[in-house]
Amino acid sequence: MNNGVNSMDVAKLAGVSQSSVSRVFFGGAAVSEKTRRKVLEAAKELGYIPNEFARSLITNKTRMIGLVMKGVNNPFYPKVLSEFTFRFKKLGYSVLFVYTNNEEIQKEDIEMLLNYHVAGVIITDASLSLKVTEDFRKNKIPLVFFNRKADKQVFSSICTNNLEASRQIAHYLMQKGCSDMVYISGERNTSTSIEREQGFVEVLQKQDLPYERFESYYSYEGGYETAKQIIRKGKIPSAIFVANDIMALGVLDVFRENSVEIPLETKVVGFDNIDMAAWPTYNLTTWEQPISEMVEKTVEYIISEIEEYTGIIQNIEIKGKLIERKTT
Amino acid sequence: MNNGVNSMDVAKLAGVSQSSVSRVFFGGAAVSEKTRRKVLEAAKELGYIPNEFARSLITNKTRMIGLVMKGVNNPFYPKVLSEFTFRFKKLGYSVLFVYTNNEEIQKEDIEMLLNYHVAGVIITDASLSLKVTEDFRKNKIPLVFFNRKADKQVFSSICTNNLEASRQIAHYLMQKGCSDMVYISGERNTSTSIEREQGFVEVLQKQDLPYERFESYYSYEGGYETAKQIIRKGKIPSAIFVANDIMALGVLDVFRENSVEIPLETKVVGFDNIDMAAWPTYNLTTWEQPISEMVEKTVEYIISEIEEYTGIIQNIEIKGKLIERKTT
Repeated sequence: MNNGVNSMDVAKLAGVSQSSVSRVFFGGAAVSEKTRRKVLEAAKELGYIPNEFARSLITNKTRMIGLVMKGVNNPFYPKVLSEFTFRFKKLGYSVLFVYTNNEEIQKEDIEMLLNYHVAGVIITDASLSLKVTEDFRKNKIPLVFFNRKADKQVFSSICTNNLEASRQIAHYLMQKGCSDMVYISGERNTSTSIEREQGFVEVLQKQDLPYERFESYYSYEGGYETAKQIIRKGKIPSAIFVANDIMALGVLDVFRENSVEIPLETKVVGFDNIDMAAWPTYNLTTWEQPISEMVEKTVEYIISEIEEYTGIIQNIEIKGKLIERKTT
Repeated sequence: MNNGVNSMDVAKLAGVSQSSVSRVFFGGAAVSEKTRRKVLEAAKELGYIPNEFARSLITNKTRMIGLVMKGVNNPFYPKVLSEFTFRFKKLGYSVLFVYTNNEEIQKEDIEMLLNYHVAGVIITDASLSLKVTEDFRKNKIPLVFFNRKADKQVFSSICTNNLEASRQIAHYLMQKGCSDMVYISGERNTSTSIEREQGFVEVLQKQDLPYERFESYYSYEGGYETAKQIIRKGKIPSAIFVANDIMALGVLDVFRENSVEIPLETKVVGFDNIDMAAWPTYNLTTWEQPISEMVEKTVEYIISEIEEYTGIIQNIEIKGKLIERKTT
């Protein structure tokens, strides 16, 4: 922008009105072939770059998607980010990245997204107050949670089928002969932590199997500290289901330091299937979240709402699969 | 945007001209107190949100910074991304994230950045053709490389002092009694790979110490495959300097699998000090890149060029430090 060439300069050189220049580049009412040629020649001569801002004011549409993210230290999310950016780019959309270091998205971030009139908003690992939602709805900006669920009546979401996944993990560990198990959750009030516990526990309780619950947070340190707590208690369970992979790596490192043999003395299952889960040092059995498919569905939903806003809430669930490695 | 309230609606309700509405929200020529009040009341009633696009057209400035990134799978870069986003947010700037899956930034990405008339561009682990640079220069958009250097006469850059760092690493390993060493580089034509080799080798050659060079790529798999190659050759060197941490973790895993004792049989030094280097399983000695300071300097440079464009090329180098852990 700064001191670049603008449409006024092009109009002057071409000897046409500024609105003719706009129509050539951004559509709208027809322009004569003669005008079009004059405008294009002038634009070329001046090195004029059509301005997305001008386009957005004229076409009443922007091509930016706000992507809100918190846990960039969990390798799952950078992958989600690159996948979204890549897919949106193919459709002519750019990603306005919003990093929030709080659990709840801050007012200033919301205002920024509204000021830029983004075409849509995707929220990964953060939450949003109901009040704010109204602002997006009023402006017909589609908003969707990715890998999180909020109030199902109000927010659309795309997630792995966490309940089904954790039920299958419980069955799998039972088949392996595990009876006393532990569940390590991430942040208490996240839908992922809650649903993964729910499916897991549901199956164990039906079989009257005991289980213990540890509350932690979604990071390597979270898993590491919790595993130390388990070691200190002196009783190693026969299996541990950890709510995500990055925590599970912390758990495995504590067991390694304390010479607890895996999978002999205890089995560990994670969730996500981040790259590191496959590293030979960890070789973690985990539930794969199909990032690519999840992103695809999210993009489809956002684009269809951009094209024709319905405001209809959708809660989409996608199946993942168990990746069996050496920790079970 | 879509069907939201616009400044025309506000103007109509307030009974003033559209340009008066613009002046109230975006400055410019003065408006009377009466007009201002009418506009603000109408805006409030309609739920009007001032549009950044309109602002940018009027003030001739945007508040978006393009951030171009390739290696999101290297934990170093997500950290850089969050640090930039955080700092720019405090200054009222947003980050337009550009993910490139090619070594050289693609034409479509450049066009997008130009179309949005971003206020500045930061390029991390990718390169840019000289021709493209002209477009940014013509539009007075400051552009800076982060953790990469390109042609020093043409591009500004902010880096760790890689030469000095790798010289010190060589001295450090010599003091530890290492004599035959290996350097594992990342992608051949990256400034980081080149400079880290140059400083390292310079010191070794002065002492007539032999060294071997392996070329790899900046990823876990890159380090992993190279270490397997070293093992196959049958001769373990007394020390290995790996051009970044994520590769070094791959190297350590191969040695673990092959029961090569570290630091007894060979010592390993990485570069970056990513979080995982400190994990007890790796405990990697490494050179810390001061991300926070590097980002701070980059933001300072960009902001000062936004405020007053000079186009003067600056190549800033920042000191890191050796973090001694258990692999040496």
